[in-house]
Amino acid sequence: MKMKKFINAPENLTIELLEGLQAAYPNTLKLEGKVVVRAKPKSKDKVAVITLGGAGHEPALSGFVGYGMLDASVVGDIFAAPNAMTLLEGLRKFKDYAGILLVVLNHAGDVMSANMALKMAARENINVKSILVAEDISAGLDSDIKDRRGLAGCIPLIKVAGDAAEQGKSLDEVLAVAEKFNSRIATLAVAMTGCTHPQNGDPIAELGEDEMEIGMGQHGEGGGGRMEVKSADETAKIMFGNLAKAVDLKAGEKVFLVINGTGACTPMEMAIVFRACSKLAEEMGAKVECGIIDEILTVQEMAGFQMILCVVDDEQLKALNAKSGAPYWTCLGE
Amino acid sequence: MKMKKFINAPENLTIELLEGLQAAYPNTLKLEGKVVVRAKPKSKDKVAVITLGGAGHEPALSGFVGYGMLDASVVGDIFAAPNAMTLLEGLRKFKDYAGILLVVLNHAGDVMSANMALKMAARENINVKSILVAEDISAGLDSDIKDRRGLAGCIPLIKVAGDAAEQGKSLDEVLAVAEKFNSRIATLAVAMTGCTHPQNGDPIAELGEDEMEIGMGQHGEGGGGRMEVKSADETAKIMFGNLAKAVDLKAGEKVFLVINGTGACTPMEMAIVFRACSKLAEEMGAKVECGIIDEILTVQEMAGFQMILCVVDDEQLKALNAKSGAPYWTCLGE
Repeated sequence: MKMKKFINAPENLTIELLEGLQAAYPNTLKLEGKVVVRAKPKSKDKVAVITLGGAGHEPALSGFVGYGMLDASVVGDIFAAPNAMTLLEGLRKFKDYAGILLVVLNHAGDVMSANMALKMAARENINVKSILVAEDISAGLDSDIKDRRGLAGCIPLIKVAGDAAEQGKSLDEVLAVAEKFNSRIATLAVAMTGCTHPQNGDPIAELGEDEMEIGMGQHGEGGGGRMEVKSADETAKIMFGNLAKAVDLKAGEKVFLVINGTGACTPMEMAIVFRACSKLAEEMGAKVECGIIDEILTVQEMAGFQMILCVVDDEQLKALNAKSGAPYWTCLGE
Repeated sequence: MKMKKFINAPENLTIELLEGLQAAYPNTLKLEGKVVVRAKPKSKDKVAVITLGGAGHEPALSGFVGYGMLDASVVGDIFAAPNAMTLLEGLRKFKDYAGILLVVLNHAGDVMSANMALKMAARENINVKSILVAEDISAGLDSDIKDRRGLAGCIPLIKVAGDAAEQGKSLDEVLAVAEKFNSRIATLAVAMTGCTHPQNGDPIAELGEDEMEIGMGQHGEGGGGRMEVKSADETAKIMFGNLAKAVDLKAGEKVFLVINGTGACTPMEMAIVFRACSKLAEEMGAKVECGIIDEILTVQEMAGFQMILCVVDDEQLKALNAKSGAPYWTCLGE
């Protein structure tokens, strides 16, 4: 079957989509090479929050550049990490700031670029510390860090860290805020269909007509949990149950929940799953305080979602609810 | 092929998805029967902005309830208008306000319910005026009003009207603001795949492997423009060209552009199309000032988008950029 996508020359995909984002949100985003920065930079006496990652997952990561979230997103080609030099150029832009927090999602290419860039930045006396997001639990609760990928949980983490930075906290304080959030967050993905790579049309993950897979990675990496398609409530029960175990959710605790659509999954379905999770939390004596039902990090047109469970306290909730200028962060109330 | 959707009993779809939205956004949305209202109502000395429509198009319409946009969304079942009595109940909730603007999308069921409810409301001396959104141009520029459907253009219109209401303008003034915006807006949709009705699994629109259709309606109603799949730039050229003609776009004018994904279309593709339109406007001497690349009104998992061209002045741009508390309105800059 011919790949059906509205694109032009495959080799220009990344630059064209970034130019499109800039054209839609010129008050917020500015493109400098393959680094997306804020149109209105924050003041230099504050910590900058930066991330890196391949394109093809829009609106992540560049759509979260803006007040209260990212200062810059360093972009690679489709599903490919940016190289270390591009990342170093991104870091250099913020060398005069009060420090840089670099948020790294746990994928081999991203980690390699980040490690190299961090070494080079250290030689230039750029004050940068990094945090690794690896909240995927599909490989099991006791799995090796290598098998725990960074999924869309990076987005609420960036919101919380970005809020701390905006308040003028020091780099160590911003890092501590991010690490605290990182310690009680877990994600599990499910897919009902695969998708196609937009540059070569190759299928990414293939699933049978009646099959779904729990644990699907961001590039179609299997998680092993293939089963017959289940109802929204049954799917929620399996996934929320595992996530609650992973973060050791206890009665009386507060939850911020994200149902992140990865492509063709309808917001209708995602809302129904959110409802089910909200009831499951209640049965455990915990409470889903609020959350997000949206596409925040997609895997092309894959029909599925990532469920992200964050155990939060009042301070973290306040940070999640705080003002944001990023085009794709959801307003949770005024 | 079995329908692959995360749902439970089909007859409970609508209520379950609304409960899910409420669970995610409790600070913003409250469910009263099948009417979604603000959790924090505006003061009664202001005009209320209300709309009605079938479910299955999430996040529209209920996801746009919130400060600066809707006061209430009266919800029907999947792809079905709410009945007149449900709408009347919605209108009654706002009878003590400074008036009600009812935004009606031009679909037979919605128009029938609206007309009946407006008559009943008049008998009860409820001060309500309505505006019909019928900005679809797929039936041709001189087509009968019956053939011009209301598509996702209602969302920016609601933003502009909602901002006027929030400022304390009178009902006639809010209506005038909405009518002015309505007079320079046009939408055209394109689809590459059909989708399935979530209650009965029936296919909605069927397209060949190499086919796309320009003019696709919100429930799969064909627009007649079947053709071989085209590139992003070629597709943009056809669609933007027709829209510019429809609104009589002139050199020097300002454009607010929305690329609304209807389901499986990736934000990556939508951004590339946005970029193309921005260049096309420039070639005409006009300027795309800013816009939205997002799913604001979906047609289940249909792979396609609606392109909405709004010719705007500075006042309207200001209204579009003004603060909103609705979960699914995009922040266009702080």
